[in-house]
Amino acid sequence: MGDPAGSGPEILLKALMKDGLLSKASFVLIGDLGVFRRASETLGTRGLHFAEITEPSAVTEAHDVVNVVDLKNVSLGELVYGKPSLLGGKAAYQCIVKAVDYAVRGWVHAVVTAPISKESLNMAGYNYPGHTELLAELTKAKEVKMMLVAEHFRVVHVTTHVSMRGAIELIRKARILETLELTIESLRDMFGIEVPRVAVAGLNPHAGEGGLFGDEEIREITPAIVEARGKGMNVLGPYPPDTVFYRAYHNREFDAVVAMYHDEGHIAMKMVGLMEGVNVTLGLPIIRVSPDHGTVWGKAGKGTADENATVEAMKLAAVLAVKKYRLQD
Amino acid sequence: MGDPAGSGPEILLKALMKDGLLSKASFVLIGDLGVFRRASETLGTRGLHFAEITEPSAVTEAHDVVNVVDLKNVSLGELVYGKPSLLGGKAAYQCIVKAVDYAVRGWVHAVVTAPISKESLNMAGYNYPGHTELLAELTKAKEVKMMLVAEHFRVVHVTTHVSMRGAIELIRKARILETLELTIESLRDMFGIEVPRVAVAGLNPHAGEGGLFGDEEIREITPAIVEARGKGMNVLGPYPPDTVFYRAYHNREFDAVVAMYHDEGHIAMKMVGLMEGVNVTLGLPIIRVSPDHGTVWGKAGKGTADENATVEAMKLAAVLAVKKYRLQD
Repeated sequence: MGDPAGSGPEILLKALMKDGLLSKASFVLIGDLGVFRRASETLGTRGLHFAEITEPSAVTEAHDVVNVVDLKNVSLGELVYGKPSLLGGKAAYQCIVKAVDYAVRGWVHAVVTAPISKESLNMAGYNYPGHTELLAELTKAKEVKMMLVAEHFRVVHVTTHVSMRGAIELIRKARILETLELTIESLRDMFGIEVPRVAVAGLNPHAGEGGLFGDEEIREITPAIVEARGKGMNVLGPYPPDTVFYRAYHNREFDAVVAMYHDEGHIAMKMVGLMEGVNVTLGLPIIRVSPDHGTVWGKAGKGTADENATVEAMKLAAVLAVKKYRLQD
Repeated sequence: MGDPAGSGPEILLKALMKDGLLSKASFVLIGDLGVFRRASETLGTRGLHFAEITEPSAVTEAHDVVNVVDLKNVSLGELVYGKPSLLGGKAAYQCIVKAVDYAVRGWVHAVVTAPISKESLNMAGYNYPGHTELLAELTKAKEVKMMLVAEHFRVVHVTTHVSMRGAIELIRKARILETLELTIESLRDMFGIEVPRVAVAGLNPHAGEGGLFGDEEIREITPAIVEARGKGMNVLGPYPPDTVFYRAYHNREFDAVVAMYHDEGHIAMKMVGLMEGVNVTLGLPIIRVSPDHGTVWGKAGKGTADENATVEAMKLAAVLAVKKYRLQD
């Protein structure tokens, strides 16, 4: 469900009504049925019926029915749209715990998460910067990373939510190598690409131009690439940041790009499809996909937030689940 | 002409043959006629005739004739395609000096430069990092900046060819303010936009998220914006780097974006049109436009380098010249 005071519940329903998604997989909403009913009224989603179930094995496959595990964890009278709250943080947390539990047991094949608020989580006493760290803890995963995905264009970052100054200090051989290993493992195991081609972006303009504009390429990035290649990985670079993403997206030369800092990959990704960005978490024992945006506070309760990223997240979750569990497509 | 050992001469001829360019303005090639003749043979450009002229006032406006001021500065027998050389650097330098001289005198209305090689220039004894610094010296310009242009999408950088570490040290209020002033002045005077809307990109992820991911936005960038606004400039931001370029390009919310470092703007620009990137030099007394790429050594002498950026550069030079000199369109 995500934060019930945000646009998450509405986005989920809007997405489920699109592109015949309900006929492509069995979906189970985990959250508060009252919140979903109100979202449905806001949207005027005719023809959408909720079937309350107590566990995923009872899932209804009728195409006009949306299965809901009702956690009864939101008091509608207290819910205020558009801002962080203890109520919202607590409910969002409980949904994630339940979804992860189902996924770890194998009762669901993948989890799509709706947007949560770090502030709401903190108000409710859960101190996580975001979904990823919480999911890692719940599943006891060692090393996790986000992969941004837009069709064949995939980006994994060596550093993310840290200042540029801090990022430069973190760009070290060991960390780059770990990122490369996790990226290649995930491309193989999750995406079914047997010999993944991975490009590495430089940190500096023109990838340092032979040391003229910075030496991190020489000291840290190239040694990581050399070691990865020595281990049999098909890793290329470091390439100038301003052309490597173009080559991956437009020319399809690589299966993924490993970027050094947050905006390197995010600028590239957003320039070709801002609202359709999707995140996949690498390194978890479960499949987890999410739209690459926040709670969209300003549109909460109005039904106007864009659902395209969530549509893409649901589709990708289904594709990855079919691969992982060898299900019928 | 650019470096005669690079793809410049071929690209110029290919561009002139496209989109009816020869009928849109009077073009004068400045360089070595022998080099152009050989490029024409390589390309098999039928119907293209060269008219040697001694100065631009003698320009032929016949649409199938290309005017050439022949500097007779390349010995074809010594020319080796695809690599830097003293010969190439010297010839390229002389072409620029001649073109700037014509432009300063008002004998031509704009200059389009073909790619040169920093190494060739250095071999010939001219120690400039690139065109921009040479042009600034020749025209005695005080402060110059490159603007990347793709139709309505324009980006000016506060820092460019310097390491990320070095860039962070250069991102200071005074430098940002200078960049803003030059950008707005140029949008008004060169592009004819009366009240330019300029967005400023942050340095850090999410533009620092209130100081959580770096404080350069708080210490340097926001104070520069506040001061610019106090001077009546319509400047907005700092915005998260990963959405501001999208907003400028896709939503047309701004007339230009001021970016903090090289790849911030270059990644955004290249993702939406790698080979069509065009540079305009701001702060010169003359109009100067160039394709945003290098000599393309690997395709020199083969006629296979892409001419689209040069086509766009020639078109933009004509548009800017019409505005500046109030010529008939």
